[in-house]
Amino acid sequence: MTVITEIAEIDTKIGTDIVDITGLVDQHLAQSQIKRGAMILFVPGSTGALTTIEYESGVIQDLADAIERLAPRDIPYAHDQRWGDGNGHSHVRAALLGPSLHIPVVDGRLSLGTWQQVVFINFDNKARRRRLIIQVMGEKE
Amino acid sequence: MTVITEIAEIDTKIGTDIVDITGLVDQHLAQSQIKRGAMILFVPGSTGALTTIEYESGVIQDLADAIERLAPRDIPYAHDQRWGDGNGHSHVRAALLGPSLHIPVVDGRLSLGTWQQVVFINFDNKARRRRLIIQVMGEKE
Amino acid sequence: MTVITEIAEIDTKIGTDIVDITGLVDQHLAQSQIKRGAMILFVPGSTGALTTIEYESGVIQDLADAIERLAPRDIPYAHDQRWGDGNGHSHVRAALLGPSLHIPVVDGRLSLGTWQQVVFINFDNKARRRRLIIQVMGEKE
Repeated sequence: MTVITEIAEIDTKIGTDIVDITGLVDQHLAQSQIKRGAMILFVPGSTGALTTIEYESGVIQDLADAIERLAPRDIPYAHDQRWGDGNGHSHVRAALLGPSLHIPVVDGRLSLGTWQQVVFINFDNKARRRRLIIQVMGEKE
Repeated sequence: MTVITEIAEIDTKIGTDIVDITGLVDQHLAQSQIKRGAMILFVPGSTGALTTIEYESGVIQDLADAIERLAPRDIPYAHDQRWGDGNGHSHVRAALLGPSLHIPVVDGRLSLGTWQQVVFINFDNKARRRRLIIQVMGEKE
Repeated sequence: MTVITEIAEIDTKIGTDIVDITGLVDQHLAQSQIKRGAMILFVPGSTGALTTIEYESGVIQDLADAIERLAPRDIPYAHDQRWGDGNGHSHVRAALLGPSLHIPVVDGRLSLGTWQQVVFINFDNKARRRRLIIQVMGEKE
Protein backbone atom coordinates (compact mmCIF):
# COMPACT_ATOMS: atom_id res chain seq x y z
CA MET A 1 0.00 0.00 0.00
CA THR A 2 1.44 3.32 -1.12
CA VAL A 3 0.45 6.86 -0.05
CA ILE A 4 1.31 9.73 -2.36
CA THR A 5 0.43 13.29 -1.38
CA GLU A 6 0.77 16.32 -3.60
CA ILE A 7 -0.39 19.92 -3.55
CA ALA A 8 -1.91 21.45 -6.66
CA GLU A 9 -2.68 25.11 -7.27
CA ILE A 10 -5.91 26.22 -8.91
CA ASP A 11 -6.62 29.69 -10.26
CA THR A 12 -10.14 30.73 -9.28
CA LYS A 13 -12.27 33.77 -9.94
CA ILE A 14 -14.36 35.64 -7.37
CA GLY A 15 -16.97 33.33 -5.78
CA THR A 16 -19.05 31.51 -6.51
CA ASP A 17 -16.57 30.04 -9.01
CA ILE A 18 -17.12 26.35 -9.79
CA VAL A 19 -14.03 24.91 -11.53
CA ASP A 20 -13.83 21.52 -13.28
CA ILE A 21 -10.71 19.81 -11.87
CA THR A 22 -11.31 16.35 -13.33
CA GLY A 23 -8.43 16.62 -15.82
CA LEU A 24 -6.07 17.88 -13.12
CA VAL A 25 -6.79 15.06 -10.68
CA ASP A 26 -6.75 12.45 -13.48
CA GLN A 27 -3.24 13.59 -14.34
CA HIS A 28 -2.10 13.23 -10.71
CA LEU A 29 -3.63 9.75 -10.58
CA ALA A 30 -1.80 8.67 -13.77
CA GLN A 31 1.52 9.95 -12.39
CA SER A 32 1.00 8.10 -9.10
CA GLN A 33 0.78 4.76 -10.98
CA ILE A 34 -1.74 3.58 -8.34
CA LYS A 35 -4.13 1.06 -9.88
CA ARG A 36 -6.41 0.08 -6.98
CA GLY A 37 -7.32 2.26 -4.02
CA ALA A 38 -8.78 5.71 -3.49
CA MET A 39 -8.08 9.36 -4.17
CA ILE A 40 -8.63 11.74 -1.28
CA LEU A 41 -9.07 15.43 -2.06
CA PHE A 42 -8.99 18.16 0.59
CA VAL A 43 -9.22 21.95 0.55
CA PRO A 44 -6.82 23.44 3.14
CA GLY A 45 -8.84 26.61 3.63
CA SER A 46 -12.19 27.72 5.00
CA THR A 47 -13.76 29.38 1.94
CA GLY A 48 -13.43 26.56 -0.60
CA ALA A 49 -15.25 23.26 -1.09
CA LEU A 50 -15.42 20.15 -3.26
CA THR A 51 -18.21 18.12 -4.82
CA THR A 52 -19.12 16.36 -8.07
CA ILE A 53 -21.58 17.51 -10.74
CA GLU A 54 -22.28 17.23 -14.46
CA TYR A 55 -20.11 20.09 -15.68
CA GLU A 56 -22.63 21.73 -17.98
CA SER A 57 -23.04 25.52 -17.88
CA GLY A 58 -26.77 25.36 -17.14
CA VAL A 59 -26.50 23.14 -14.09
CA ILE A 60 -23.40 25.00 -12.88
CA GLN A 61 -25.50 28.17 -12.81
CA ASP A 62 -28.31 26.27 -11.08
CA LEU A 63 -25.92 25.10 -8.34
CA ALA A 64 -24.58 28.64 -7.85
CA ASP A 65 -28.17 29.92 -7.60
CA ALA A 66 -29.09 27.25 -5.03
CA ILE A 67 -26.05 28.18 -2.92
CA GLU A 68 -27.06 31.85 -3.13
CA ARG A 69 -30.48 30.91 -1.70
CA LEU A 70 -28.84 28.73 0.98
CA ALA A 71 -26.54 31.48 2.30
CA PRO A 72 -27.36 34.75 0.53
CA ARG A 73 -24.63 37.29 -0.01
CA ASP A 74 -26.80 40.30 0.86
CA ILE A 75 -27.95 39.48 4.40
CA PRO A 76 -26.02 40.57 7.51
CA TYR A 77 -23.25 38.24 8.77
CA ALA A 78 -21.76 38.55 12.27
CA HIS A 79 -18.35 37.71 10.76
CA ASP A 80 -18.51 40.78 8.53
CA GLN A 81 -19.67 43.05 11.34
CA ARG A 82 -16.71 41.94 13.45
CA TRP A 83 -13.93 41.67 10.89
CA GLY A 84 -15.08 43.68 7.89
CA ASP A 85 -13.89 40.99 5.47
CA GLY A 86 -17.21 40.90 3.66
CA ASN A 87 -16.87 37.13 3.22
CA GLY A 88 -19.11 35.77 6.00
CA HIS A 89 -21.28 34.12 3.36
CA SER A 90 -18.17 32.46 1.86
CA HIS A 91 -17.29 30.78 5.16
CA VAL A 92 -20.83 29.55 5.75
CA ARG A 93 -21.15 28.16 2.22
CA ALA A 94 -17.84 26.30 2.47
CA ALA A 95 -18.73 24.78 5.85
CA LEU A 96 -22.08 23.55 4.50
CA LEU A 97 -20.60 21.98 1.36
CA GLY A 98 -17.52 20.51 3.04
CA PRO A 99 -13.77 20.42 2.31
CA SER A 100 -13.22 16.74 1.59
CA LEU A 101 -14.08 14.22 -1.11
CA HIS A 102 -12.84 10.76 -1.93
CA ILE A 103 -13.20 8.74 -5.09
CA PRO A 104 -12.42 5.04 -5.54
CA VAL A 105 -9.67 4.13 -7.98
CA VAL A 106 -10.34 1.02 -10.07
CA ASP A 107 -8.01 -0.24 -12.83
CA GLY A 108 -6.00 2.97 -12.57
CA ARG A 109 -9.02 5.20 -13.17
CA LEU A 110 -11.32 7.31 -11.01
CA SER A 111 -14.66 5.53 -10.79
CA LEU A 112 -16.73 8.55 -11.86
CA GLY A 113 -19.98 8.30 -13.78
CA THR A 114 -20.05 9.23 -17.46
CA TRP A 115 -21.57 12.67 -16.81
CA GLN A 116 -19.90 13.30 -13.46
CA GLN A 117 -17.03 15.72 -12.99
CA VAL A 118 -15.03 16.73 -9.91
CA VAL A 119 -15.33 20.42 -9.03
CA PHE A 120 -13.46 22.82 -6.78
CA ILE A 121 -15.61 25.74 -5.62
CA ASN A 122 -14.13 29.07 -4.60
CA PHE A 123 -16.59 30.90 -2.36
CA ASP A 124 -14.28 33.73 -1.35
CA ASN A 125 -15.14 37.28 -2.33
CA LYS A 126 -12.01 37.70 -4.41
CA ALA A 127 -10.13 35.85 -7.14
CA ARG A 128 -7.56 33.54 -5.57
CA ARG A 129 -4.90 31.01 -6.44
CA ARG A 130 -6.03 28.19 -4.17
CA ARG A 131 -4.35 25.05 -2.93
CA LEU A 132 -5.80 21.55 -3.18
CA ILE A 133 -4.33 18.49 -1.47
CA ILE A 134 -4.41 15.42 -3.70
CA GLN A 135 -3.71 12.13 -2.02
CA VAL A 136 -3.69 8.70 -3.64
CA MET A 137 -3.65 5.57 -1.47
CA GLY A 138 -3.48 2.09 -2.88
CA GLU A 139 -1.62 -0.59 -4.78
CA LYS A 140 0.41 -0.13 -7.94
CA GLU A 141 -0.65 -3.47 -9.44
CA MET B 1 -3.57 -3.84 4.04
CA THR B 2 -6.13 -5.11 1.55
CA VAL B 3 -8.36 -3.14 -0.85
CA ILE B 4 -11.54 -4.77 -2.10
CA THR B 5 -13.79 -2.91 -4.55
CA GLU B 6 -17.20 -4.07 -5.67
CA ILE B 7 -20.14 -2.57 -7.53
CA ALA B 8 -23.66 -3.07 -6.22
CA GLU B 9 -26.89 -2.27 -7.98
CA ILE B 10 -29.79 -0.62 -6.18
CA ASP B 11 -33.34 -0.35 -7.49
CA THR B 12 -34.70 3.12 -6.78
CA LYS B 13 -37.99 4.86 -7.39
CA ILE B 14 -38.47 8.34 -8.81
CA GLY B 15 -36.73 10.95 -6.62
CA THR B 16 -36.58 11.83 -3.90
CA ASP B 17 -36.21 8.15 -2.99
CA ILE B 18 -34.24 7.51 0.20
CA VAL B 19 -33.21 3.82 0.39
CA ASP B 20 -31.79 2.04 3.44
CA ILE B 21 -28.64 0.24 2.23
CA THR B 22 -27.26 -0.75 5.64
CA GLY B 23 -28.00 -4.45 5.14
CA LEU B 24 -26.44 -4.42 1.67
CA VAL B 25 -23.19 -2.81 2.76
CA ASP B 26 -23.02 -4.96 5.91
CA GLN B 27 -23.15 -8.02 3.68
CA HIS B 28 -20.29 -6.73 1.51
CA LEU B 29 -18.25 -6.02 4.63
CA ALA B 30 -18.80 -9.56 5.96
CA GLN B 31 -17.73 -11.07 2.63
CA SER B 32 -14.58 -8.93 2.52
CA GLN B 33 -13.42 -10.44 5.85
CA ILE B 34 -11.82 -7.07 6.69
CA LYS B 35 -11.76 -6.57 10.46
CA ARG B 36 -10.06 -3.19 10.90
CA GLY B 37 -10.13 -0.32 8.43
CA ALA B 38 -12.77 1.68 6.61
CA MET B 39 -15.56 1.29 4.10
CA ILE B 40 -15.70 3.89 1.32
CA LEU B 41 -18.96 4.32 -0.55
CA PHE B 42 -19.28 6.33 -3.77
CA VAL B 43 -22.09 7.08 -6.22
CA PRO B 44 -20.77 7.07 -9.81
CA GLY B 45 -23.44 9.43 -11.11
CA SER B 46 -24.53 13.03 -10.74
CA THR B 47 -28.11 12.62 -9.52
CA GLY B 48 -27.53 10.36 -6.51
CA ALA B 49 -26.09 10.93 -3.04
CA LEU B 50 -25.23 9.24 0.25
CA THR B 51 -25.67 10.11 3.92
CA THR B 52 -26.71 8.53 7.21
CA ILE B 53 -30.00 8.97 9.08
CA GLU B 54 -32.30 7.17 11.50
CA TYR B 55 -34.36 5.19 8.99
CA GLU B 56 -37.80 5.97 10.38
CA SER B 57 -40.58 6.95 7.96
CA GLY B 58 -41.28 10.27 9.72
CA VAL B 59 -37.75 11.58 9.57
CA ILE B 60 -37.27 10.23 6.02
CA GLN B 61 -40.24 12.39 4.98
CA ASP B 62 -38.77 15.32 6.91
CA LEU B 63 -35.45 14.99 5.06
CA ALA B 64 -37.22 14.82 1.68
CA ASP B 65 -39.20 17.94 2.62
CA ALA B 66 -36.04 19.83 3.64
CA ILE B 67 -34.38 18.92 0.34
CA GLU B 68 -37.49 20.15 -1.51
CA ARG B 69 -37.11 23.52 0.24
CA LEU B 70 -33.36 23.58 -0.50
CA ALA B 71 -33.73 23.03 -4.26
CA PRO B 72 -37.44 23.10 -5.15
CA ARG B 73 -38.65 21.07 -8.09
CA ASP B 74 -41.03 23.76 -9.37
CA ILE B 75 -38.68 26.69 -9.97
CA PRO B 76 -36.89 27.28 -13.30
CA TYR B 77 -33.53 25.57 -13.84
CA ALA B 78 -31.10 26.60 -16.59
CA HIS B 79 -30.26 22.92 -17.10
CA ASP B 80 -33.87 22.15 -18.01
CA GLN B 81 -34.19 25.14 -20.32
CA ARG B 82 -31.09 23.99 -22.19
CA TRP B 83 -31.51 20.22 -22.24
CA GLY B 84 -35.16 19.57 -21.50
CA ASP B 85 -34.30 16.73 -19.10
CA GLY B 86 -36.48 18.16 -16.36
CA ASN B 87 -33.93 17.04 -13.75
CA GLY B 88 -32.03 20.25 -13.01
CA HIS B 89 -33.20 20.05 -9.41
CA SER B 90 -31.87 16.47 -9.21
CA HIS B 91 -28.35 17.55 -10.17
CA VAL B 92 -28.33 20.45 -7.73
CA ARG B 93 -29.58 18.31 -4.84
CA ALA B 94 -26.98 15.62 -5.49
CA ALA B 95 -24.13 18.13 -5.67
CA LEU B 96 -25.20 19.71 -2.37
CA LEU B 97 -25.49 16.38 -0.52
CA GLY B 98 -22.37 14.80 -2.01
CA PRO B 99 -21.47 11.44 -3.60
CA SER B 100 -19.08 9.98 -1.03
CA LEU B 101 -19.22 8.57 2.49
CA HIS B 102 -16.82 6.59 4.58
CA ILE B 103 -17.43 4.60 7.72
CA PRO B 104 -14.78 3.14 10.04
CA VAL B 105 -14.70 -0.65 10.40
CA VAL B 106 -13.97 -1.91 13.91
CA ASP B 107 -13.94 -5.61 14.89
CA GLY B 108 -15.40 -6.49 11.49
CA ARG B 109 -18.39 -4.19 11.90
CA LEU B 110 -19.37 -0.75 10.63
CA SER B 111 -19.11 1.69 13.53
CA LEU B 112 -22.61 3.11 13.12
CA GLY B 113 -24.71 4.40 16.00
CA THR B 114 -27.65 2.34 17.25
CA TRP B 115 -30.22 4.44 15.40
CA GLN B 116 -28.08 5.33 12.40
CA GLN B 117 -28.55 3.79 8.97
CA VAL B 118 -26.72 4.31 5.67
CA VAL B 119 -28.91 5.66 2.88
CA PHE B 120 -28.63 5.97 -0.87
CA ILE B 121 -30.74 8.81 -2.27
CA ASN B 122 -31.99 8.82 -5.85
CA PHE B 123 -32.79 12.40 -6.87
CA ASP B 124 -33.40 11.68 -10.55
CA ASN B 125 -36.85 12.31 -12.00
CA LYS B 126 -37.35 8.68 -12.92
CA ALA B 127 -37.05 5.26 -11.33
CA ARG B 128 -33.56 3.86 -11.94
CA ARG B 129 -31.37 0.89 -11.21
CA ARG B 130 -28.35 2.71 -9.82
CA ARG B 131 -24.77 1.68 -9.20
CA LEU B 132 -22.92 2.07 -5.92
CA ILE B 133 -19.19 1.50 -5.48
CA ILE B 134 -18.37 -0.28 -2.23
CA GLN B 135 -14.75 -0.29 -1.21
CA VAL B 136 -13.27 -1.85 1.91
CA MET B 137 -9.69 -1.05 2.93
CA GLY B 138 -7.99 -2.59 5.90
CA GLU B 139 -6.61 -5.63 7.70
CA LYS B 140 -8.19 -9.07 7.88
CA GLU B 141 -7.05 -9.70 11.44
CA MET C 1 0.42 0.80 6.54
CA THR C 2 -1.06 1.03 10.03
CA VAL C 3 -4.69 1.59 11.08
CA ILE C 4 -5.36 3.00 14.54
CA THR C 5 -8.95 3.52 15.69
CA GLU C 6 -9.98 5.27 18.88
CA ILE C 7 -13.18 6.63 20.36
CA ALA C 8 -13.21 10.09 21.93
CA GLU C 9 -15.97 11.62 24.01
CA ILE C 10 -17.03 15.22 23.55
CA ASP C 11 -19.23 17.20 25.92
CA THR C 12 -21.74 19.22 23.94
CA LYS C 13 -24.48 21.68 24.84
CA ILE C 14 -28.00 21.73 23.44
CA GLY C 15 -27.94 22.16 19.63
CA THR C 16 -26.87 23.85 17.59
CA ASP C 17 -23.54 23.54 19.47
CA ILE C 18 -20.48 23.88 17.25
CA VAL C 19 -17.37 22.61 19.10
CA ASP C 20 -13.75 23.12 18.02
CA ILE C 21 -12.14 19.65 18.17
CA THR C 22 -8.88 20.53 16.39
CA GLY C 23 -6.79 20.21 19.56
CA LEU C 24 -8.39 16.88 20.42
CA VAL C 25 -7.76 15.30 17.03
CA ASP C 26 -4.24 16.76 16.84
CA GLN C 27 -3.47 15.00 20.11
CA HIS C 28 -4.74 11.66 18.77
CA LEU C 29 -2.64 12.12 15.64
CA ALA C 30 0.50 12.80 17.67
CA GLN C 31 -0.09 9.69 19.80
CA SER C 32 -0.61 7.53 16.69
CA GLN C 33 2.90 8.44 15.45
CA ILE C 34 1.55 8.26 11.87
CA LYS C 35 3.51 10.62 9.63
CA ARG C 36 1.93 10.12 6.18
CA GLY C 37 -1.66 9.11 5.49
CA ALA C 38 -5.09 10.34 6.46
CA MET C 39 -7.31 10.88 9.47
CA ILE C 40 -10.89 9.69 9.17
CA LEU C 41 -13.46 11.12 11.56
CA PHE C 42 -16.97 9.71 11.97
CA VAL C 43 -19.96 10.50 14.19
CA PRO C 44 -21.68 7.26 15.28
CA GLY C 45 -25.07 8.88 15.75
CA SER C 46 -27.81 10.52 13.71
CA THR C 47 -27.99 13.97 15.32
CA GLY C 48 -24.33 15.03 15.04
CA ALA C 49 -22.13 16.13 12.14
CA LEU C 50 -18.62 17.23 11.20
CA THR C 51 -17.16 19.97 9.02
CA THR C 52 -14.36 22.55 9.01
CA ILE C 53 -14.66 26.30 9.55
CA GLU C 54 -12.68 29.30 10.80
CA TYR C 55 -13.50 29.02 14.50
CA GLU C 56 -14.38 32.66 15.12
CA SER C 57 -17.50 33.47 17.16
CA GLY C 58 -19.04 35.62 14.41
CA VAL C 59 -18.88 33.00 11.68
CA ILE C 60 -19.90 30.24 14.11
CA GLN C 61 -23.09 32.21 14.76
CA ASP C 62 -23.53 32.75 11.02
CA LEU C 63 -23.28 29.00 10.39
CA ALA C 64 -25.82 28.25 13.13
CA ASP C 65 -28.16 30.86 11.60
CA ALA C 66 -27.81 29.33 8.11
CA ILE C 67 -28.62 25.88 9.48
CA GLU C 68 -31.66 27.33 11.24
CA ARG C 69 -32.88 28.65 7.86
CA LEU C 70 -32.10 25.31 6.19
CA ALA C 71 -34.12 23.20 8.63
CA PRO C 72 -35.99 25.52 11.01
CA ARG C 73 -36.74 24.32 14.52
CA ASP C 74 -40.25 25.79 14.61
CA ILE C 75 -41.90 24.07 11.64
CA PRO C 76 -43.77 20.74 11.95
CA TYR C 77 -41.72 17.54 11.57
CA ALA C 78 -43.32 14.15 10.93
CA HIS C 79 -40.70 12.59 13.24
CA ASP C 80 -41.94 14.71 16.14
CA GLN C 81 -45.60 13.99 15.43
CA ARG C 82 -44.85 10.26 15.49
CA TRP C 83 -42.33 9.95 18.30
CA GLY C 84 -42.65 13.15 20.33
CA ASP C 85 -38.89 13.51 20.61
CA GLY C 86 -38.96 17.10 19.43
CA ASN C 87 -35.70 16.56 17.54
CA GLY C 88 -36.90 16.05 13.95
CA HIS C 89 -34.96 19.15 12.95
CA SER C 90 -31.81 17.67 14.55
CA HIS C 91 -31.99 14.53 12.41
CA VAL C 92 -32.57 16.49 9.20
CA ARG C 93 -29.70 18.89 9.90
CA ALA C 94 -27.27 16.05 10.66
CA ALA C 95 -28.22 14.14 7.49
CA LEU C 96 -27.69 17.27 5.36
CA LEU C 97 -24.28 18.11 6.87
CA GLY C 98 -23.00 14.52 7.00
CA PRO C 99 -21.27 12.32 9.58
CA SER C 100 -17.85 11.83 8.01
CA LEU C 101 -14.74 13.88 7.29
CA HIS C 102 -11.22 12.99 6.31
CA ILE C 103 -8.09 15.08 6.43
CA PRO C 104 -4.73 14.23 4.85
CA VAL C 105 -1.76 13.79 7.20
CA VAL C 106 1.53 15.20 5.91
CA ASP C 107 4.78 15.21 7.92
CA GLY C 108 2.84 14.09 11.00
CA ARG C 109 0.43 17.01 10.83
CA LEU C 110 -3.15 17.53 9.66
CA SER C 111 -3.03 19.50 6.43
CA LEU C 112 -5.50 22.17 7.55
CA GLY C 113 -5.36 25.77 6.38
CA THR C 114 -4.14 28.47 8.73
CA TRP C 115 -7.65 29.67 9.60
CA GLN C 116 -9.37 26.29 9.33
CA GLN C 117 -10.53 24.30 12.34
CA VAL C 118 -12.28 20.94 12.64
CA VAL C 119 -15.70 21.13 14.30
CA PHE C 120 -18.13 18.65 15.80
CA ILE C 121 -21.73 19.86 15.70
CA ASN C 122 -24.34 18.62 18.15
CA PHE C 123 -27.79 19.18 16.66
CA ASP C 124 -29.72 17.26 19.30
CA ASN C 125 -32.23 19.13 21.45
CA LYS C 126 -30.37 18.36 24.66
CA ALA C 127 -26.85 18.58 26.02
CA ARG C 128 -25.03 15.30 25.41
CA ARG C 129 -21.72 13.59 25.90
CA ARG C 130 -21.15 12.41 22.33
CA ARG C 131 -18.82 9.86 20.80
CA LEU C 132 -16.46 10.52 17.90
CA ILE C 133 -14.52 7.82 16.06
CA ILE C 134 -10.99 8.90 15.22
CA GLN C 135 -9.12 6.75 12.77
CA VAL C 136 -5.61 7.28 11.47
CA MET C 137 -4.34 5.26 8.50
CA GLY C 138 -0.83 5.55 7.16
CA GLU C 139 2.89 5.10 7.58
CA LYS C 140 4.93 5.88 10.69
CA GLU C 141 7.94 7.08 8.72
